[in-house]
Amino acid sequence: MNKILVFGHQSPDTDAITSAITFSHLQNELGKETEAVALGETTDETNYALNYFGVTAPRVITTAAEETQEVMLVDHNESQQSVPDIDKVKILAVVDHHRIANFQTANPLFYRAEPVGCTNTIIFKLFKENNVDIPKHIAGLMLSAIISDTLLLKSPTCTKEDENVAEELAKLAGVELEAYGKALLKAGTDTSSKNADM
Amino acid sequence: MNKILVFGHQSPDTDAITSAITFSHLQNELGKETEAVALGETTDETNYALNYFGVTAPRVITTAAEETQEVMLVDHNESQQSVPDIDKVKILAVVDHHRIANFQTANPLFYRAEPVGCTNTIIFKLFKENNVDIPKHIAGLMLSAIISDTLLLKSPTCTKEDENVAEELAKLAGVELEAYGKALLKAGTDTSSKNADM
Ligand SMILES: [Mn+2]
Ligand SMILES: [Mn+2]
Ligand SMILES: [Mn+2]
Ligand SMILES: [Mn+2]
Repeated sequence: MNKILVFGHQSPDTDAITSAITFSHLQNELGKETEAVALGETTDETNYALNYFGVTAPRVITTAAEETQEVMLVDHNESQQSVPDIDKVKILAVVDHHRIANFQTANPLFYRAEPVGCTNTIIFKLFKENNVDIPKHIAGLMLSAIISDTLLLKSPTCTKEDENVAEELAKLAGVELEAYGKALLKAGTDTSSKNADM
Repeated sequence: MNKILVFGHQSPDTDAITSAITFSHLQNELGKETEAVALGETTDETNYALNYFGVTAPRVITTAAEETQEVMLVDHNESQQSVPDIDKVKILAVVDHHRIANFQTANPLFYRAEPVGCTNTIIFKLFKENNVDIPKHIAGLMLSAIISDTLLLKSPTCTKEDENVAEELAKLAGVELEAYGKALLKAGTDTSSKNADM
């Protein structure tokens, strides 16, 4: 039995990369055997978050069906944003905050979508509902995704729930929200930081 | 602003009818203005449950767009099982336990699916997560749906979670699970009961 692969969309942003890591962590705590992978290289912004919290970037895959029969999707559902051979594997779960389109399954599945600013806001709730502790590095990655997707809680897609979760995560991650958030977003735009982050 | 309509699939079974009622109740407790409606007449089995717990059958609609702009779907997602003009309204939420197919939205939404035996098992969890009390008649309808969908916890689709929820609901509803369950399923097959139930 191969590991269940967990991944976000192609051209991954910070939420796509980190939600794979955080949701895989949750699933493993709940007894599944999963591995977070990615459908593309990490950006400078994402590398800043990974480096800050001491987490290695997930390996990049170009096929799922050649190594597993089962997958979990995060931060996307549309097949054209997913792994090219998505129709050859069974989708066990989706956690997402986008519209649903170009998505179908042959079997019932776990699907969790909410109209919030970030997939990790939903994953945070899943940790709580399942009474699973959120380690510091996982909290840091979740927080980074919320900062990234909501532009430090300023985007029109940001909800009160994203704000509350971000504040709680900042405490768990041991960072000051504004200062860390500005540094993270700067890392994503500051090309001179590229070598330092990679 | 018209009420948000909440409904299950065409040719409604007990889960389709009662999950509209129970999810609408939850949404109203959370501050939304919703009304449970149905896409067809109730069956003898469903009428037994409604009569037992003193609840009126939802009115039957054949169009949604003529009276509302927003809907919530329960116990289904596929457009051909839904109201004929589903593409003319905004789908705010879906709670379901079936595969996802022939479903798409223009906007992000609340979507909650789990591979369990009954939609009301998921709605029960939503009440708990939102700390909303489950009144006796709502518990009774939820229980009736689980009994119906899982054939008194004996179907291959029935999970441990459905069993646990059914036991807790039986207490809340003040009925003995086996006895009530057998009477409910009998009402659905016993044609002589038709006049009494209608
Ligand atoms: Mn994304
Ligand atoms: Mn996202
Ligand atoms: Mn049904
Ligand atoms: Mn059902």
